[in-house]
Amino acid sequence: MDEQHITSAFDRDLEAMQAQIMKMGGLVEAAIMEAASALETRDEELAQKVLENDAAIDGLEEIINSEAARVIALRSPTAVDLRLILSVMKIASNLERVGDYAKNIAKRTGVLAQTGHILDSGAALRRMAREVELMLKDALDAHVQRDAELAQDVINRDLDVDQMYNAMFREFLTYMMENPQNITPCMHLHFIAKNIERMGDHVTAIAEQVIYVVAGETPAEERVKGDTTSTAPQEG
Amino acid sequence: MDEQHITSAFDRDLEAMQAQIMKMGGLVEAAIMEAASALETRDEELAQKVLENDAAIDGLEEIINSEAARVIALRSPTAVDLRLILSVMKIASNLERVGDYAKNIAKRTGVLAQTGHILDSGAALRRMAREVELMLKDALDAHVQRDAELAQDVINRDLDVDQMYNAMFREFLTYMMENPQNITPCMHLHFIAKNIERMGDHVTAIAEQVIYVVAGETPAEERVKGDTTSTAPQEG
Repeated sequence: MDEQHITSAFDRDLEAMQAQIMKMGGLVEAAIMEAASALETRDEELAQKVLENDAAIDGLEEIINSEAARVIALRSPTAVDLRLILSVMKIASNLERVGDYAKNIAKRTGVLAQTGHILDSGAALRRMAREVELMLKDALDAHVQRDAELAQDVINRDLDVDQMYNAMFREFLTYMMENPQNITPCMHLHFIAKNIERMGDHVTAIAEQVIYVVAGETPAEERVKGDTTSTAPQEG
Repeated sequence: MDEQHITSAFDRDLEAMQAQIMKMGGLVEAAIMEAASALETRDEELAQKVLENDAAIDGLEEIINSEAARVIALRSPTAVDLRLILSVMKIASNLERVGDYAKNIAKRTGVLAQTGHILDSGAALRRMAREVELMLKDALDAHVQRDAELAQDVINRDLDVDQMYNAMFREFLTYMMENPQNITPCMHLHFIAKNIERMGDHVTAIAEQVIYVVAGETPAEERVKGDTTSTAPQEG
């Protein structure tokens, strides 16, 4: 078995893993949009579908991890190749977390349907989720095409998501102060907004992996964190 | 270089990585308790220390990742050895996340000190943080000693943390309904409780890695999730 042959076998293995990542990414993108849509339209059936589909996402992560371990053991990749495989595992882990947040949103849909207080936040949450879903799509494209510039663009756009979250946080506070009956639904809506904001953080982590693979190092500066609610006192 | 020699070199590498994990774990344990203590006593100086120390935790994760990549490339470990190294990387990643949550709690200390509403929740939050810190200590001991039973015990104890969180969630809701001035501080306190609950999830993930390494597979059943606030309507 000559060197050329070994390289090709590794490439085939890697391609198969990339295919699994894209499949997993597709499921996660669908989960994000379905969870947001179920929330907006109080569609408990669609929310249930998101809950059920999460097992497939988790299953893909396990497959990718096993496959990565198999490839490392079998091919002993070094330098760039090894970095690539470890990065695929990290991306799978981040995708799984995003899927978990989508599942968590779907779980709250039932609760919100029961509270009966219809606050007009579903559309805003869906827009925020849509933004994260587009970021995820670009992050995965950047991964496949080794496009560090596109990855950096994704990282920059996470600031918008953080700002959307900050605006909603303030909005929920005012609703709660206006009427105590809004407190319970707003706590849930706020959690949902925070979950979407965290999804953005995981998508950002995927984009950072792309830059790490392309440049051989993680971005030097920790990115500016756009969620200011943890440090600024909320005056309503 | 005979097989024996190669094995010993691998063992030495692994031991060095385990030492880094224990060092990282020690820093994270300290961060949890310092963040909780700073919160309870509104000690902004101690909170600042937690913020500053987080860089050391992040740095250790990077060192462990680089070292893992180096060892994989150099020693081409297979089967159990490879599983062990990949598991060390996962544990480092979970530790880093726990450190992030401690940092997030420390950030909110300043805000809460400014709001001026002293709700008597600091002690309860500290007890919850203490429980998570003990779980982390045991999870890391289980890791070093390959003790699947202790790891399972840690996983079981996470239910207590989830129950503590549920109780606090309900308590915060009643505070907010009693007085709108409580809404802003309670939103922050609730976030802190949720962050501690999430720390417990990451510690559980570490314990699951221990079982994975010992048994060669992840626990079959997804554990029962004790945080019921996402599915149960809150009636106050």
